Amino acid sequence: MLSTAKHRFLIIADGQFHPMTSKTANCCIRYMPERIVGVLDRAQAGKTVQDVLGFGGPIPVVGDFEHGLASGEGGGATAVLIGIAPMGGRLPPDWRGWLTTAIERGLEIWSGLHTFIGDDPELGALARARGVRIFDARRPPPNLPVADGRAAEVDAYIVHTVGSDCNVGKMTAQVELRDALARRGHRARFVATGQTGIFIEGWGIAVDAVVADFIAGAAETLVLEAAKDADIVLVEGQGSLIHPGYSGVTLGLLHGSCPDALILCHQASRDYIGDYHGREPWVKIPPLRELVEIYERAAAPVHPTKVIGICLNTFDLTEARARDAVRQAQDETGLPATDPVRFGSGPLADAIIREAMAAR
Amino acid sequence: MLSTAKHRFLIIADGQFHPMTSKTANCCIRYMPERIVGVLDRAQAGKTVQDVLGFGGPIPVVGDFEHGLASGEGGGATAVLIGIAPMGGRLPPDWRGWLTTAIERGLEIWSGLHTFIGDDPELGALARARGVRIFDARRPPPNLPVADGRAAEVDAYIVHTVGSDCNVGKMTAQVELRDALARRGHRARFVATGQTGIFIEGWGIAVDAVVADFIAGAAETLVLEAAKDADIVLVEGQGSLIHPGYSGVTLGLLHGSCPDALILCHQASRDYIGDYHGREPWVKIPPLRELVEIYERAAAPVHPTKVIGICLNTFDLTEARARDAVRQAQDETGLPATDPVRFGSGPLADAIIREAMAAR
Repeated sequence: MLSTAKHRFLIIADGQFHPMTSKTANCCIRYMPERIVGVLDRAQAGKTVQDVLGFGGPIPVVGDFEHGLASGEGGGATAVLIGIAPMGGRLPPDWRGWLTTAIERGLEIWSGLHTFIGDDPELGALARARGVRIFDARRPPPNLPVADGRAAEVDAYIVHTVGSDCNVGKMTAQVELRDALARRGHRARFVATGQTGIFIEGWGIAVDAVVADFIAGAAETLVLEAAKDADIVLVEGQGSLIHPGYSGVTLGLLHGSCPDALILCHQASRDYIGDYHGREPWVKIPPLRELVEIYERAAAPVHPTKVIGICLNTFDLTEARARDAVRQAQDETGLPATDPVRFGSGPLADAIIREAMAAR
Repeated sequence: MLSTAKHRFLIIADGQFHPMTSKTANCCIRYMPERIVGVLDRAQAGKTVQDVLGFGGPIPVVGDFEHGLASGEGGGATAVLIGIAPMGGRLPPDWRGWLTTAIERGLEIWSGLHTFIGDDPELGALARARGVRIFDARRPPPNLPVADGRAAEVDAYIVHTVGSDCNVGKMTAQVELRDALARRGHRARFVATGQTGIFIEGWGIAVDAVVADFIAGAAETLVLEAAKDADIVLVEGQGSLIHPGYSGVTLGLLHGSCPDALILCHQASRDYIGDYHGREPWVKIPPLRELVEIYERAAAPVHPTKVIGICLNTFDLTEARARDAVRQAQDETGLPATDPVRFGSGPLADAIIREAMAAR
């Protein structure tokens, strides 16, 4: 376990701080707001996080790095967290100055980029020279196994979130469900499979960053570990089976974690896979009913499972339209549906408990 | 392009030289026998390669490394090729002595293991000190992109082999088809996506060794390069969509290469996924008709494609049973079928040409 709790973070989200483009920043703000001193985005300096996201309160958005470091109570930031995930995850060159400054002042760097900052010849060397820790959350552990089916043999009930696309709420659903299940008295454990979840939970493996042969093996490793002290294991999903770039990660995770149940996540207003909007829209997201089939069919040969609930992200809809979307999803699939952030995760938590009991 | 042609290889396949367990060794022997001076397998010393595999002629199987290095005409081996691929691909510790000897004598090491020999503190340092090249075929190129759909836009006709399992003939099918299409006057190019294909072709990317987010991007990169000077691009498949450990690689490759057509490969006698036979049989291989559907459905949301032929591996069947299996596959799927090694790849080459013409 990492000590997320001891740090006060300045989040870098320069030029991309927005409800849809700064997922890591947004989720860290949602689930550990008391640890965030400020967000750096030169384009929106002077706003509050609440202004930009609709949650997060008075945390300031700053345009000056030094100013950001000094923000917040308790003496300013103790670490810098890279809060945006550009496609491909590589380090933007113009951030080097900021990171150099941070390291020189002894602040830890928390990064979820594919390019490991600790391996950067300049930044890594500087950090080592100064005795400053760089935490590259995506760096895989050594000696991952090829998946061997052992995730199917644990006693815990395994729930895996899958999605219509990236960035629709697969991690958020599990964090919300962990809390809802804990409130109902269950020993539930969240399994982080991406950098943001690892930042929040302090534990996990970024499965999109492991060597391809070991995607499923990484998922299996995580499930075995989490099942040691939990009755319900909540495995964060990644990507989508219909995402042209990341589908391999999604299938490996689905097969490696051998889930007992799936929760299908979708942004209600989204029609096309989002990463390809720069070009003409490419991959159309099929109806929910069809997505349920796609996931159940893909899992079946290795470990049959079923979708037991629908998790909608309705942040960009009016309240009335959001309720309509939830009702429609229920009607279309015959499954419980909710937006866990807007309407609570109760219906999904109840479905998990019901199914877990029935499976005993 | 690497200079496969200049080397004479001693292949290490110790304890595993067999038609089913030494795929890399066997394929190198099949497609470049004139370059192989011997095979090291202490358990079968004294036999010929023909004795063990049923092809390959008088190439000796040796039990002594030094003896092996001196085998063959033209002054013995100039390189050592690691010819077995243990599950997970890690370097067996007891081979260090042999590799040290080879490097000390100035012989190149060609390896397809996941653990890069060039990064080994002892062997890598020794090779650098002696100026000896270690070729780690699985080492990914730097700066792979996330797939962007550009493979769908090339003029060449893209054919991708997919399979019921690992080690059923997906690479062999493409190498045979490349030759058959060339004989028919077509500019066909084989795209190697695994270490064995890279050894044979001197070019490619081992997609199972790239960081998981870039599987499809690696496939796209390969297709774009191959399509520059070919009318038909033959993309080697990996794993299987129903393989619990490697399915992610398979789906990434399928989506990234945006194939116009698929050829489904299967070992006729195989009922279960092979890697899990140490435990009780786990994943049952469904009927061919169902596998066709699994692949076409998985591809459809990103880039619709269809299976246009069946490639059977019948090495362990009598001639009569093999012909039965081919007939059965044709009847079941309504598609042309053959064992390209046993009966020639004509029916599949014809199907590719027919479909490519129709697609223009």
